[in-house]
Amino acid sequence: MFENKDESRTSLGELGEFGLINHLTQTFKIKQSSTVTAIGDDAAVIDPDGKQLVVTTDLLVEGVHFDLSFMPLKHLGYKAVMVNLSDVYAMNAEATQITVSIAVSNRFPLEALEELYAGIELACSIYNVDLIGGDTTSSTTGLLISVTALGQAEPATLVKRDGAKDGDLLVVSGDLGASYMGLQVLEREKQVYKVNPNAQPDLEPYAYLVERQLKPEARKDVVELLKKIEVQPTAMIDISDGLSSEIIHLCKSSKTGVRLYEEKIPLDPQLIQVCEEFELDSTTVALSGGEDYELLFTIKQEDYEKIKGNPHLTVIGHITPENDGLNLITRANTSIPIVARGWNALKDEE
Amino acid sequence: MFENKDESRTSLGELGEFGLINHLTQTFKIKQSSTVTAIGDDAAVIDPDGKQLVVTTDLLVEGVHFDLSFMPLKHLGYKAVMVNLSDVYAMNAEATQITVSIAVSNRFPLEALEELYAGIELACSIYNVDLIGGDTTSSTTGLLISVTALGQAEPATLVKRDGAKDGDLLVVSGDLGASYMGLQVLEREKQVYKVNPNAQPDLEPYAYLVERQLKPEARKDVVELLKKIEVQPTAMIDISDGLSSEIIHLCKSSKTGVRLYEEKIPLDPQLIQVCEEFELDSTTVALSGGEDYELLFTIKQEDYEKIKGNPHLTVIGHITPENDGLNLITRANTSIPIVARGWNALKDEE
Repeated sequence: MFENKDESRTSLGELGEFGLINHLTQTFKIKQSSTVTAIGDDAAVIDPDGKQLVVTTDLLVEGVHFDLSFMPLKHLGYKAVMVNLSDVYAMNAEATQITVSIAVSNRFPLEALEELYAGIELACSIYNVDLIGGDTTSSTTGLLISVTALGQAEPATLVKRDGAKDGDLLVVSGDLGASYMGLQVLEREKQVYKVNPNAQPDLEPYAYLVERQLKPEARKDVVELLKKIEVQPTAMIDISDGLSSEIIHLCKSSKTGVRLYEEKIPLDPQLIQVCEEFELDSTTVALSGGEDYELLFTIKQEDYEKIKGNPHLTVIGHITPENDGLNLITRANTSIPIVARGWNALKDEE
Repeated sequence: MFENKDESRTSLGELGEFGLINHLTQTFKIKQSSTVTAIGDDAAVIDPDGKQLVVTTDLLVEGVHFDLSFMPLKHLGYKAVMVNLSDVYAMNAEATQITVSIAVSNRFPLEALEELYAGIELACSIYNVDLIGGDTTSSTTGLLISVTALGQAEPATLVKRDGAKDGDLLVVSGDLGASYMGLQVLEREKQVYKVNPNAQPDLEPYAYLVERQLKPEARKDVVELLKKIEVQPTAMIDISDGLSSEIIHLCKSSKTGVRLYEEKIPLDPQLIQVCEEFELDSTTVALSGGEDYELLFTIKQEDYEKIKGNPHLTVIGHITPENDGLNLITRANTSIPIVARGWNALKDEE
């Protein structure tokens, strides 16, 4: 193994697997009444008390999904939880429990994993979710995080992808593309640093974009808002791979077409400015950027009055019959087909 | 990327992530009435109908938990499911659903993943479990499999680790140590093959041991048997890390001591023979070997008559007060403390 030259670093081997899990999770508190037994037995026990349970899982791999040269471990832990909670909220459900498994090479000292778990704990605390289990093992290279999230919903309020109907309005929360541009900024700074390690990056003009990339928030608030204003979406999906790709999923599942209006796509002013700086088209970035973790959903036309003027929600189009296809109506009022160019995790590297 | 010289190999990039999941899981059938929605939305939906839910997860890493030079991918898929179901059965629960996430490098063609999923599907089919979700992503090196299993139980029949009481009998299913010795045999053959690639290994004399290593079975049958003969264990754990380690977990959780009788530990005749060949002590192998996936549990003395003579179950000791400590009574009738020397996933490599 690597020699441990820094005396302040604790090697993982000193603790052993069980010691490590106990050490990393000892400060986590149980928040959900449905959590009967959490970490410490062969399996956790959940009693959802008459509700339906939703289950989702995501895997984050070093060098594929994150770059530790600019991703602080605490942020990574937080983001790994957000990615999963976002899928639970996209079912219009309440996130209640998570399991977290990590594979880690011996180059990481205990203090690094403590940082990672501090981010996981912060996410659990803010989103009112219990950590109920996991697995900790060694990897031959790098860090890998596998999170499974559980949630609960009343069967009547659960929303799937397949319920959109002709005439429904297409709505998105927040704004799009910022996370992708935050990544572009961070990767540019990494290149600058490689050439001149003494350069001090000024990330202030990019603060919003960088935050969206490093510390995204899942839209629990939107699920709560929809409940409060009594809007039941007809279909919903979270935006992890870019707006185009998610619209295609939703319409394919619902067997519908769509008209998406370019001028309606919500963009943050900082995004528009930085797209100009990078000479990128902001619409393309919003359509294909990914990692926004906003919610994309459809509502009945009669619910329009309830969401009108809400700063978190934007109507960006409407559902059409399947035969009409999936179309983007540009600012020049031409119609072009929507194609998926989202980031593809398994695309061969050229 | 690696050049694809073999025309019969399909590269993963051709399918894309969504195409890949659909392709690999299209033949899986839903078997559980509690599975409302499986793969294809942001999350799966489960309706456990008044029962408690158990959740467990395990991560298998190439080069740490398995060696593809002798582990066929179909067996690996099967084993990855078994490892998790075993934890569900150890709660005296019925396994009902799994999620499977894999990280895989481009060196694996589609056909390799099809083999892996054939093993997963076989396990789901035999154990009556639904695959309800997962994530498929690329890795920079090797193969990694993360499985989460869900199960259901009536609250009254669920068994945890902490219920053992002074005087309870300690029982184990099946026999111990075979999986570890199977691994020793396979690793020896691998070394022989390295020296002489034309050598034809004769694994016939080691068939049982090798099968226990490559294709272990989780003890669903034992959970069903206990229900049938109306035995409610007071505490239960599955043997993944070796008997010593699991006894220590069970007794620590239950705040008890134990007397374990060496002569009672169930060993297969093939194990005894091969331990002699390898000059290893068979008791040590059974105590520390790991990967047996048998169930270790405690029962009230009054239940002894119900299990007596059952070929699947062996009484190996009894629970004592905590102060008496954890003791192995050897064949020579001396008492020695039980210590955990199970395989430690995070131990520094020397």
